Amino acid sequence: GPVKRVDTSDWPCPIARSAAVLGDHWNLLLIRQACLGTRRFDEFQSALEVPRAVLTARLRRLCDEGMLERVAYQDAPVRHEYRLTAKGRAFYDVLAAMWRFGNDWLWPDGERPPLQLVDRDSGDPVVPRVVDETTGGPIDVRRLRIKLAHPSQGRPAPPDPD
Amino acid sequence: GPVKRVDTSDWPCPIARSAAVLGDHWNLLLIRQACLGTRRFDEFQSALEVPRAVLTARLRRLCDEGMLERVAYQDAPVRHEYRLTAKGRAFYDVLAAMWRFGNDWLWPDGERPPLQLVDRDSGDPVVPRVVDETTGGPIDVRRLRIKLAHPSQGRPAPPDPD
Repeated sequence: GPVKRVDTSDWPCPIARSAAVLGDHWNLLLIRQACLGTRRFDEFQSALEVPRAVLTARLRRLCDEGMLERVAYQDAPVRHEYRLTAKGRAFYDVLAAMWRFGNDWLWPDGERPPLQLVDRDSGDPVVPRVVDETTGGPIDVRRLRIKLAHPSQGRPAPPDPD
Repeated sequence: GPVKRVDTSDWPCPIARSAAVLGDHWNLLLIRQACLGTRRFDEFQSALEVPRAVLTARLRRLCDEGMLERVAYQDAPVRHEYRLTAKGRAFYDVLAAMWRFGNDWLWPDGERPPLQLVDRDSGDPVVPRVVDETTGGPIDVRRLRIKLAHPSQGRPAPPDPD
């Protein structure tokens, strides 16, 4: 059978928590599709060719996670669509970092991706980059350390870093 | 049985290509672990409690993807460890964006994550942020459009500066 996933949704590391949502192929592709403007079940279904039962379950999960909200857009018969929440829009930063990584590393030498992100009004290129907001410079994983943010002050023992 | 994943590794969208690698729980957690300094099989195994057969297959895949390299660190008997490549280190930008998203959105109201990223030498906080490198400002998904980067003009795709 399939390997049981480790549930990291309550780990103290923000990356591990994110991985519980992001480390899923369909979740990533559905949020990407929502960011492209897709809202309706049949549009998700045809864009990704995902089985309907799977799509139903995954959209429900993303609503439970607070990434999407299910909104009625029509009465008689009532019909719903799925809209990004503020949390779902914030998640675009992760997709933007993926865009940049894919752009820089996932094409063969000498080839360039055929797509470009641009501002809808100005048409100017939008080039995602991950920086350290305290310095404005790039982040070098080799220089990073993780420390406890809240030294114990008589409160319950903090979770150990993993 | 498990739902077949759609293979997005050759899609024209850099996010979709990245999702083929990233949209996998174990890949994300293994690269995170490598970024924390883990190099040896048994250390990955005990940190993540992943079955050995799964770990073997996933480490091999990350080597095939060029994210890790397998390096002998000892003779008689020969022993190998797994080191991040330049590509693997570049991937930390995606993890950094996940750190920020998790930090901002995945704790209950009024609670803060117990961990902080700091520079190993200065001890200063490192706060990941995704920006548009052309403006230095945040990226708003509602303002984004995707266009073809290389309008066909009968030549091979030129390497546009990004």
